[in-house]
Amino acid sequence: MTQTASHPVQQRYADPDAAVPAQWNTVLEVLHEHKSVRRYLPDPVAPETIRLLVSAAQSAPTSSNLQAWSVIEVRDPARRARLAAIAGGQAHIEQAPVLLVWTADFARLRQLADDHRAPLDGVDYLESSYVGVVDAALAAQNAVIAAESLGLGTVYIGALRNDPEQVVAELNLPAHVFPVFGLVVGYPDPAEGTRVKPRLPQAAVLHQETYDLPGQREPVAAYEQRIGAVYGDQGLPFSWTERVLARLGSEAALNGRHRLRESLTTMGFRLR
Amino acid sequence: MTQTASHPVQQRYADPDAAVPAQWNTVLEVLHEHKSVRRYLPDPVAPETIRLLVSAAQSAPTSSNLQAWSVIEVRDPARRARLAAIAGGQAHIEQAPVLLVWTADFARLRQLADDHRAPLDGVDYLESSYVGVVDAALAAQNAVIAAESLGLGTVYIGALRNDPEQVVAELNLPAHVFPVFGLVVGYPDPAEGTRVKPRLPQAAVLHQETYDLPGQREPVAAYEQRIGAVYGDQGLPFSWTERVLARLGSEAALNGRHRLRESLTTMGFRLR
Repeated sequence: MTQTASHPVQQRYADPDAAVPAQWNTVLEVLHEHKSVRRYLPDPVAPETIRLLVSAAQSAPTSSNLQAWSVIEVRDPARRARLAAIAGGQAHIEQAPVLLVWTADFARLRQLADDHRAPLDGVDYLESSYVGVVDAALAAQNAVIAAESLGLGTVYIGALRNDPEQVVAELNLPAHVFPVFGLVVGYPDPAEGTRVKPRLPQAAVLHQETYDLPGQREPVAAYEQRIGAVYGDQGLPFSWTERVLARLGSEAALNGRHRLRESLTTMGFRLR
Repeated sequence: MTQTASHPVQQRYADPDAAVPAQWNTVLEVLHEHKSVRRYLPDPVAPETIRLLVSAAQSAPTSSNLQAWSVIEVRDPARRARLAAIAGGQAHIEQAPVLLVWTADFARLRQLADDHRAPLDGVDYLESSYVGVVDAALAAQNAVIAAESLGLGTVYIGALRNDPEQVVAELNLPAHVFPVFGLVVGYPDPAEGTRVKPRLPQAAVLHQETYDLPGQREPVAAYEQRIGAVYGDQGLPFSWTERVLARLGSEAALNGRHRLRESLTTMGFRLR
């Protein structure tokens, strides 16, 4: 049985011996108490609230101020049902009132360049695809934090990449716009009762000056025990290692995402 | 001359007519008041503070709980000077006491798979590189928000990708670890006096149900005027459009990042 860990940092590591930080504030509290929410109340989320999440998102850093992302607010239940099917039938996409689809967007900049009869050859490189993906991720994460500060819950939907062409068709995305992930937004159903998910000990992910690989074996083994105990408390016979190995073990386990290079090419990303 | 915009949302859009949100809190304040900091005080940042930023980072969502990222804390002044040179001579990397280098990391999971004599073929796909990049970005952005809540300043350093092989050598990164970006962390020099950078009107980036490209021309043109006025107030003769077109106009403008595909292949990412 896992011991009670009272401070959010101790909860995050499922480690009652983790050092309690000397500094603390409301923002750190919201960041550390994050949980992905997969059961929602039917309560509506006001359009103004979504606008506030988006202004928070736009406040995130963006590479060279390119702002190479856009977000599509999907409320139509029929469209959400179809997107849920693409994502392998995730019921929470239909349950919550809003799905935000975050895209890496070079169509806006291409249109600007075309209007000025200027080249935009830099977009054709793999590098630029990462710029758009990072821009979208930084923006979306700000929206997540903003949402949680308002009592809303969220969960990212990477499984939209199982079939990006269908997402493109559904949202009428033009060339040079790539749907990176969805984000469900709604009010959490308190009956879900999930706990904060423990993460790897810091010794595995934080390195001093240079990277240490063999030194990660011990903290990874400790994690396997700790998260196993937390899963066990919830009646789930899960092993982190087994889940990782299953998730990345084979092409088939990618659920269609092994085609992503082909999909991106179809969308106009040359990935040179 | 730009008008005074008193609410953070109005500042963010350089638009005194932007609607003031009905909901507001400390977290939204920190998110909206973000500024990238490029001048730092010599004041030290305690190791415990970095640990707190990393526990915030680890609290971010991660695809399938893979936690496919690591971060390297670089304090050694000589190493920071060499990394600053790779990044085109950005003085703030030497000025602030800490540079965090965020990586997409599949080495940890490869080691785990190898120890279990299990395959990990899913890592060989382009898709997995995006999983690692998104994981690193979500984590880093949580660290940015945590830092700003503590009065620290930050700036992302995408220019480490100008020469990733040299970063790999400097940080002793093993195969399957890709340095996505750096993040400078330190106390802002109040003499820098930068303002919040205005972003595109929401009408350009937030779409309802489906994507609208031609409808972005008008908000983009409005932005060109608004940010031009803000630059003008600072004595900077900049045009956003000109800067975007210069930044992405050609292979040469990528400052070496046109080689990223080759670099990633060298690092063991097959990008199938």
